[in-house]
Amino acid sequence: MIITLKKNAPAEEIRKLHDSFEEKGLQVSLIEGKDFNVFGLVGDTAHIYERDILANMWVENVQRVSAPYKLANRMFHPEDTVVDVAGVKVGGKEKIVVIGGPCSVEGREQICRIAQEVSECGADMLRGGAYKPRTSPYSFQGLGYEGIMDLCEARDRTGLPVVSELMSADKLDEFAANVDLIQIGARNMQNFDLLKAVGHVKKPVLLKRGMSATIEDWIMSAEYILSSGNPNVIFCERGIRTFETYTRNTMDLSVIPILKERTHLPVIIDPSHATGDWKLIEPISLAAIAAGADGLIIEVHDHPSSAWSDGAQSLKPENFQELIRRCRKVAAAIGRDM
Amino acid sequence: MIITLKKNAPAEEIRKLHDSFEEKGLQVSLIEGKDFNVFGLVGDTAHIYERDILANMWVENVQRVSAPYKLANRMFHPEDTVVDVAGVKVGGKEKIVVIGGPCSVEGREQICRIAQEVSECGADMLRGGAYKPRTSPYSFQGLGYEGIMDLCEARDRTGLPVVSELMSADKLDEFAANVDLIQIGARNMQNFDLLKAVGHVKKPVLLKRGMSATIEDWIMSAEYILSSGNPNVIFCERGIRTFETYTRNTMDLSVIPILKERTHLPVIIDPSHATGDWKLIEPISLAAIAAGADGLIIEVHDHPSSAWSDGAQSLKPENFQELIRRCRKVAAAIGRDM
Amino acid sequence: MIITLKKNAPAEEIRKLHDSFEEKGLQVSLIEGKDFNVFGLVGDTAHIYERDILANMWVENVQRVSAPYKLANRMFHPEDTVVDVAGVKVGGKEKIVVIGGPCSVEGREQICRIAQEVSECGADMLRGGAYKPRTSPYSFQGLGYEGIMDLCEARDRTGLPVVSELMSADKLDEFAANVDLIQIGARNMQNFDLLKAVGHVKKPVLLKRGMSATIEDWIMSAEYILSSGNPNVIFCERGIRTFETYTRNTMDLSVIPILKERTHLPVIIDPSHATGDWKLIEPISLAAIAAGADGLIIEVHDHPSSAWSDGAQSLKPENFQELIRRCRKVAAAIGRDM
Amino acid sequence: MIITLKKNAPAEEIRKLHDSFEEKGLQVSLIEGKDFNVFGLVGDTAHIYERDILANMWVENVQRVSAPYKLANRMFHPEDTVVDVAGVKVGGKEKIVVIGGPCSVEGREQICRIAQEVSECGADMLRGGAYKPRTSPYSFQGLGYEGIMDLCEARDRTGLPVVSELMSADKLDEFAANVDLIQIGARNMQNFDLLKAVGHVKKPVLLKRGMSATIEDWIMSAEYILSSGNPNVIFCERGIRTFETYTRNTMDLSVIPILKERTHLPVIIDPSHATGDWKLIEPISLAAIAAGADGLIIEVHDHPSSAWSDGAQSLKPENFQELIRRCRKVAAAIGRDM
Repeated sequence: MIITLKKNAPAEEIRKLHDSFEEKGLQVSLIEGKDFNVFGLVGDTAHIYERDILANMWVENVQRVSAPYKLANRMFHPEDTVVDVAGVKVGGKEKIVVIGGPCSVEGREQICRIAQEVSECGADMLRGGAYKPRTSPYSFQGLGYEGIMDLCEARDRTGLPVVSELMSADKLDEFAANVDLIQIGARNMQNFDLLKAVGHVKKPVLLKRGMSATIEDWIMSAEYILSSGNPNVIFCERGIRTFETYTRNTMDLSVIPILKERTHLPVIIDPSHATGDWKLIEPISLAAIAAGADGLIIEVHDHPSSAWSDGAQSLKPENFQELIRRCRKVAAAIGRDM
Repeated sequence: MIITLKKNAPAEEIRKLHDSFEEKGLQVSLIEGKDFNVFGLVGDTAHIYERDILANMWVENVQRVSAPYKLANRMFHPEDTVVDVAGVKVGGKEKIVVIGGPCSVEGREQICRIAQEVSECGADMLRGGAYKPRTSPYSFQGLGYEGIMDLCEARDRTGLPVVSELMSADKLDEFAANVDLIQIGARNMQNFDLLKAVGHVKKPVLLKRGMSATIEDWIMSAEYILSSGNPNVIFCERGIRTFETYTRNTMDLSVIPILKERTHLPVIIDPSHATGDWKLIEPISLAAIAAGADGLIIEVHDHPSSAWSDGAQSLKPENFQELIRRCRKVAAAIGRDM
Repeated sequence: MIITLKKNAPAEEIRKLHDSFEEKGLQVSLIEGKDFNVFGLVGDTAHIYERDILANMWVENVQRVSAPYKLANRMFHPEDTVVDVAGVKVGGKEKIVVIGGPCSVEGREQICRIAQEVSECGADMLRGGAYKPRTSPYSFQGLGYEGIMDLCEARDRTGLPVVSELMSADKLDEFAANVDLIQIGARNMQNFDLLKAVGHVKKPVLLKRGMSATIEDWIMSAEYILSSGNPNVIFCERGIRTFETYTRNTMDLSVIPILKERTHLPVIIDPSHATGDWKLIEPISLAAIAAGADGLIIEVHDHPSSAWSDGAQSLKPENFQELIRRCRKVAAAIGRDM
Repeated sequence: MIITLKKNAPAEEIRKLHDSFEEKGLQVSLIEGKDFNVFGLVGDTAHIYERDILANMWVENVQRVSAPYKLANRMFHPEDTVVDVAGVKVGGKEKIVVIGGPCSVEGREQICRIAQEVSECGADMLRGGAYKPRTSPYSFQGLGYEGIMDLCEARDRTGLPVVSELMSADKLDEFAANVDLIQIGARNMQNFDLLKAVGHVKKPVLLKRGMSATIEDWIMSAEYILSSGNPNVIFCERGIRTFETYTRNTMDLSVIPILKERTHLPVIIDPSHATGDWKLIEPISLAAIAAGADGLIIEVHDHPSSAWSDGAQSLKPENFQELIRRCRKVAAAIGRDM
């Protein structure tokens, strides 16, 4: 960590600050400049927060050199983490996975029928929301426990592991018992109590990026889960909020190589929420595969125009099948299985 | 609600869509244009979600005319809501309130001492975090229940109502019993389960704006609380994330007149989190008062450079006192008491 | 265009507004609702600006239905435009093009050497900046006319058409005479006088997206060039400004399918400026090809660490060659030549 | 400037980099850490660009300590600059100025009539656009030279200095001869050739902030003008682009104290463009005065609903007069004249 001191900082204040860092077990070096003095701190600075140091009125600027995350950091964990979701391996050199299914579970018959269809198209897991985060309290909020039971039935019939979003720690037991991959949604990426809660179970967690989160914020949220004891974290990019109005969000595919360089965790891509438009899903999916994604999560519905939520961004099964066919060609072109 | 249909939509599809709206109890008018056809829907459209209609492949565009919020809407509730926080009135033509105190409760002695100081400076309420949302799991997470008890002691000694942030519904009973104004932080603005939970008590809620939330998103979050049964909601603007790096966030003071035009709820301003820099707090506070804010919430610490969190944006008591003195002059200039 | 009138708009005002639209040659339909009245305007609304109508105090909201662009609109020009850059065809079903070269021309010897290298790697055109937009007046501003002459020499030796950025209309003659593809940089995307100027020549124009421009803003800038008489416009996405700090900008690949649906013009991708990091260029290039880009523009330098500008985002020739090799595989996988 | 080197940087490479900085006349200090090595550069680093150093593959991170601007920097120019606009002083402890007038000059009669009205209301200068930057080529583009002549006539009749936007360097002589304060619009904030051009005259320049510019970008644009020889620069904040849709832009009032701390130049505020809504202009103007603005620039039109541009954000003269009356009270409350 590099700390720039104001030009006119008194020697006495510099000494006090110096000592306070040494008391925290850090080695401190001083560069004396014409306009500024600079401290270099060497040691474990992950527990120091830049803004706290800025509170000292003689400090001009604080710059972190080491990353603030440790367990997620590839520097200390060079090999890829492969997460096992009820037998489906995600990450590393494993086969690229495809997760398909409706935005919301709308009933047992619907989810079982779509599960069958996505399975036949080549999906590796089934998605379906039972507890839905909706902007309006007047929108459909999901079938709740009944929806989770419907997902279990669909899993029993098709063998596909199931993914669903957890919105509140008080449902964690229900999810740990029934869901194979627990999704933390974009709006809860910094719901730190929920992150700690899912860190206390071992079930794999699909951690979506917050709407305006930086990649570092996001890795720090993964660090919450890892440091609570659960190593099974998969990142999921779902687009960030930008000024653009022709898409619902803006897909940021640069996260794929960046997360793979800085962390050892798998990365999957959600083109449905990123674009909000079923016509854009295929080109963005092809791009994600080409950029090195470990998987895709895609909304599929057999009657999008009567879906209870997000029909505009849902693919019909036939288009989903065609998408997988084309993605496999791109995967082959970059030397990966899918 | 205005729905634009594609030029080439078949008559049969137009008819089906028309009927589907009528079944929902809406009146439907059709404008036939050269390039597009347009439906106008008249009736209660708050339970219809624009994106769901977009799922129909013949729909080009959906535009909401009425606001999607009802209980927060000034159109249906013209008089100002005044929220009573343990005797301190907020909103309407009431005296502008000032909430002061440290970012974090650091112990009984500290919070009682600062409570005494902010009280003497003229504050109306005391703030202090006991459960802290921190980006890093390695940062101080707050004193928890002990911190809440310390706040109660400070209230007993000074008479100031206390404000503290609730991060998880499982602490709601603790907060309902001990805290006078329950803060929902920016990161939880769309933690819908938490919003519903605080909607089930009657304690006043201070609802911070999410880091990249639009004003409409924010009003919809208030609508969650109101529609769950709690009418005592106060908005708190704390800055939004922008590209600017010289400030922590960017204060958006336009929310004051906008929220007052569109809703009937009080609005207070947090210049500490918006700027992240104690030197900027006074000019932004003066501006907020001039723009019509119903109150200020400001971080005050007697030793900012050794604060356990957010020292860089904390005022010393003497500066806080001076700020109040100057704000009162501006309040007088616009005809309000403070 | 759909105009929502306030509930309490007097009949007299509604009539006046109605007449004012009819005077502009538009047909006007009225829907009378419970809470609002709505006008639908049918006819050519491209010359009407939404905000001008909003100035009427009885207008609540204005929503454009038809796109505000005409010449760029695929609806009125269904076939792909193929732009011919000194014999290299860009767009449509043509071969995907690769433009390579240094950020800045640093001298005749340097640009000729790199031109030779990128040509041998398989590039179709040569890029090189002679007039450089730099944030600081103290940074290197480019070699100017001498740089343009050096580019011409490099073209003579290799046969590659040359691309360079025009910053000011007073150099247009120099560019029209010497440069094959005139680049308009991101910072000048809404320098409307410069857009009109390049619209008065026939030389192909590479129009970069502004740092925070929406896709519609960008298409409107193309419309300026087209409506001034120059049909040879190529869009170039170079990333948009977001909160992310790990990359210089955020690449938005959704522009590829969107621009191809809404306009008939070619789209090329600049992964160098979008990422700012040479290590990210290859995965993003592969992704761009998979998403359907018509070309790539990539910074190549034989000694990046001593480049006069943008070395951090420059590929070495050997990496550029490898990138092209891999991109060709992905192009083949989606059925395009490269 | 602080340069962090990668852990595994070879001694030979560190030495070469060290020497390259010394050759540029800088003193170099080295801190050796466990995970990283760090260089501290002391001397004039304004001509060094961070990204150029990042091109060295052994460099992990570059952090500027000194500001990259010199002539605008208050550190080297502690006293306030007061800009004299044809006798009206702006900045320092001078009277707060008000600039009023229509978005566009619509003809001699219109501008002279509005000039008379704003003068009677208490305005110090007249604004009016003759060359208009419009998103659409089909929108009204301004009266051009005729509009400038009309402004001159209005000045002759009222004595108010005139402000108008310059879009292209080829009109600079026309502006230098006729306009008292040359406005550089938001879209041209980084049109560096235009900045250099206005730097070569002595006429005062009103430099608007770019729509997504950081404050540092903006100061660097002022530095272009200053370093070309023109010391008469006034900053004008007009809001930045954010996700908010209820306002046209988001006003960032924190720029006032920040620019005053870091630079010595005056700052005025444009609430018309920031909000886009005439009803918001007064509260935001009051806030700007309270925060320490040196002036306001406000759109005034006697018939907003038939204005040729931006009527929605134009005040009627009676509202403008009332606004000035209220602003004067707030100015008095903070101890300034207006």
